[in-house]
Amino acid sequence: MSKQKKFLLQENEIPTQWYNILADMPHKPLPPIHPATKQPLGWEDLAHIFPAECAKQELNTTDRWIDIPEEVIEKYKFYRSTPLVRAYDLEKALDTPAHIYFKNESTNPLGSHKINSALAQCYYCKQEGTTNVTTETGAGQWGAALAYAAKIFGLSAAVYQVKISMLQKPYRSSIMRTFDAVVNGSPSMSTRAGKDILTADPNHMGSLGTAISEAIELATTTPHCKYVLGSVLNHVALHQSIIGLEAEKQMQMAGEYPDMVIACFGGGSNFGGVAFPFMRHNILEGRTTEFIAAEPESCPKLTRGKFQYDFGDEAGYTPLLPMFTLGHQFKPANIHAGGLRYHGAGMIVSQLIKDGLMHGVDIPQLESFRAGILFAQTEGIIPAPESSHAIAATIREALKCKETGEEKVILFNLSGHGLIDMSAYDQYINGDLQNYSISDKEISDNVAQLEQII
Amino acid sequence: MSKQKKFLLQENEIPTQWYNILADMPHKPLPPIHPATKQPLGWEDLAHIFPAECAKQELNTTDRWIDIPEEVIEKYKFYRSTPLVRAYDLEKALDTPAHIYFKNESTNPLGSHKINSALAQCYYCKQEGTTNVTTETGAGQWGAALAYAAKIFGLSAAVYQVKISMLQKPYRSSIMRTFDAVVNGSPSMSTRAGKDILTADPNHMGSLGTAISEAIELATTTPHCKYVLGSVLNHVALHQSIIGLEAEKQMQMAGEYPDMVIACFGGGSNFGGVAFPFMRHNILEGRTTEFIAAEPESCPKLTRGKFQYDFGDEAGYTPLLPMFTLGHQFKPANIHAGGLRYHGAGMIVSQLIKDGLMHGVDIPQLESFRAGILFAQTEGIIPAPESSHAIAATIREALKCKETGEEKVILFNLSGHGLIDMSAYDQYINGDLQNYSISDKEISDNVAQLEQII
Repeated sequence: MSKQKKFLLQENEIPTQWYNILADMPHKPLPPIHPATKQPLGWEDLAHIFPAECAKQELNTTDRWIDIPEEVIEKYKFYRSTPLVRAYDLEKALDTPAHIYFKNESTNPLGSHKINSALAQCYYCKQEGTTNVTTETGAGQWGAALAYAAKIFGLSAAVYQVKISMLQKPYRSSIMRTFDAVVNGSPSMSTRAGKDILTADPNHMGSLGTAISEAIELATTTPHCKYVLGSVLNHVALHQSIIGLEAEKQMQMAGEYPDMVIACFGGGSNFGGVAFPFMRHNILEGRTTEFIAAEPESCPKLTRGKFQYDFGDEAGYTPLLPMFTLGHQFKPANIHAGGLRYHGAGMIVSQLIKDGLMHGVDIPQLESFRAGILFAQTEGIIPAPESSHAIAATIREALKCKETGEEKVILFNLSGHGLIDMSAYDQYINGDLQNYSISDKEISDNVAQLEQII
Repeated sequence: MSKQKKFLLQENEIPTQWYNILADMPHKPLPPIHPATKQPLGWEDLAHIFPAECAKQELNTTDRWIDIPEEVIEKYKFYRSTPLVRAYDLEKALDTPAHIYFKNESTNPLGSHKINSALAQCYYCKQEGTTNVTTETGAGQWGAALAYAAKIFGLSAAVYQVKISMLQKPYRSSIMRTFDAVVNGSPSMSTRAGKDILTADPNHMGSLGTAISEAIELATTTPHCKYVLGSVLNHVALHQSIIGLEAEKQMQMAGEYPDMVIACFGGGSNFGGVAFPFMRHNILEGRTTEFIAAEPESCPKLTRGKFQYDFGDEAGYTPLLPMFTLGHQFKPANIHAGGLRYHGAGMIVSQLIKDGLMHGVDIPQLESFRAGILFAQTEGIIPAPESSHAIAATIREALKCKETGEEKVILFNLSGHGLIDMSAYDQYINGDLQNYSISDKEISDNVAQLEQII
């Protein structure tokens, strides 16, 4: 009898509610506050920038389950459920007794998990009479998903793409344009935030923080325009919980429950998406699953950042958020995992780390590519450089199991494929990539500036 | 009650046998013949170049069902079944009463249907003690699939990629290198065939015919090396029948049966894969499904070619094959659908056209891109330029249904995604692409040369 490789849900088994971990957290996150007044913000304040329904979800600490709108479920059916896959060949290559599963979000339209929240946010925009959306994107996974979601809900989309990522992955801009989105390299000269940054540093290659500033400025100066974000915020992790809720059902089909859940970490949306539905069993039922967020060595906010109120963007347009951060003016190295080049962690994850419910690990760039290629050569999917951080962390744990003989069940989220990132693989194969570590002084200097903010 | 969008088979429902239409054809294809002796070739002759089991399958006109090896089924489980999807949003955009379904082979590893045969051929190579495989590739879909399949079965792979496609789609060479394949731009200076072509025309940008010549030369001059092919031949269509066999079960789940089956056409493997399992019901039970092969206007062998023995490659290394052809020295225009730039049609398809069991249609390049973008904007998947030919043909038929009011059921094969082809989309959006029609004289001049061969 051959072993089952893939676990899929039928359409009528796709979850119809998202899971809101805010309702179950032992300690709620501190509130977002207004930078000038230092007062906590209500959803009406957030709704100046974000779709109103998302603003409400952002601060909803009472409802554990939130209904997914019927129209969003209809779009989820285009591609969900995604497969849960047992990585037998990776296990064999590692000679590990661990059971490795991955949730394969790379089969989604546009190739990553980002579409799960893009559809929800664009749906709410449309419901609320918004006609234009704007956002930032790093590697372009989020921008591509947003461009598609905006198109199918009849919205105009303007995307600020981090300039370094635009140059590294030009095809992602092409994808956005295929869906009629306007794509601007950030920093651009089209906003005051962009002009200020370029005036100070004409060769600034951009960062997610900068691109967020530009998008927020466009949203607040354009009628019927809302800003949408692909990660960091609570409501994005809420929408992404579809990943973990499906995986929970699929792990049941496989007759197993994860001892570890691993995902890469930029702002936290794919991590929260796969992890939080399992984490509720730790919180509510005393399960002891370990949750690991894999960040790049060059952007180590979880492991070496400071817990502190900070801005979400470089220019300081966002509310102040309580987060583990390297400082909003931290300039991440030009690693290829563009989606992980962000200075801070989401509010929920930051609180969970403080409460010891999860932890981060740092992955050097070369280790991530080595892991990505081993995964491709065994499981047949070329992973996004971001996802390769999760794979690298999984491999570390699987090799520990080999030493101890433990048959741990490891679940990781394959957040996206890397077919648009092949130039990065080329550079790795040619030996042209390097690791980027940063000094304690660089971190402490950056974080020290924060103390003047609040 | 919402309508079901996707139809999936469980792992234990994946077919365990391929369908061999050769056994059911009312008239068998003429045999391949030796160019010098003009005698029909036996499988032992073909086995000098191809894996022996594939050579036997190539000439097997008696067994309707051929067992899929267990090891190949195990690899199929990595990604199969692929979804059958009802294209509700495309139907709505076209305002057509037609029911449009597509079989989504774009979710496969490496992004196309090609892996279905690559796994089978590499498995047989390994079983037979072959250590090296070589092949040609156009756009690179086949080369990428072959590189992966070779890797997981422990073979070394050398791929000759058509030079124009290599320049248009550099990421596909990167993908092959990720799986440790050696990639050569063709024509290359590494073979006599390549040198001869480059001597005659130093700027020759390559063609599938040329690349095949180079790969065959490498295979026949290298120990323990076999040549494998991604299309044209009977055994490749056999392996691809997994597509149509799955689709047949999935259409039953949808409670429908196709009035039309449509696929793009290069050498015929994805067309045969989706079409032949349905065509057997036309042959055996008098069903009247219409089968349409969509070829590019610039390479119209099905609609304007001549039925004639011809070589499969430019240099004339292959056996002579009975095919609809534009002549093996026909130089297709540099359209972006690199996988369709081939001068001839497979033996089975050529015979089926003669017997009136299917027909071809020609699609201009600009119409194919227009269709591809409409599909992306409705169904969320950016199609390969090759697959866009099938979409364009489907749209034509759906619009006819709109005129007549007929609720025809149309099934097309989405053979692959276009994420590696974004530069082509860029050029289309920027207005830099054109149509290429060819004159009757160009075709007749090319074909006239053939008459000296046999």
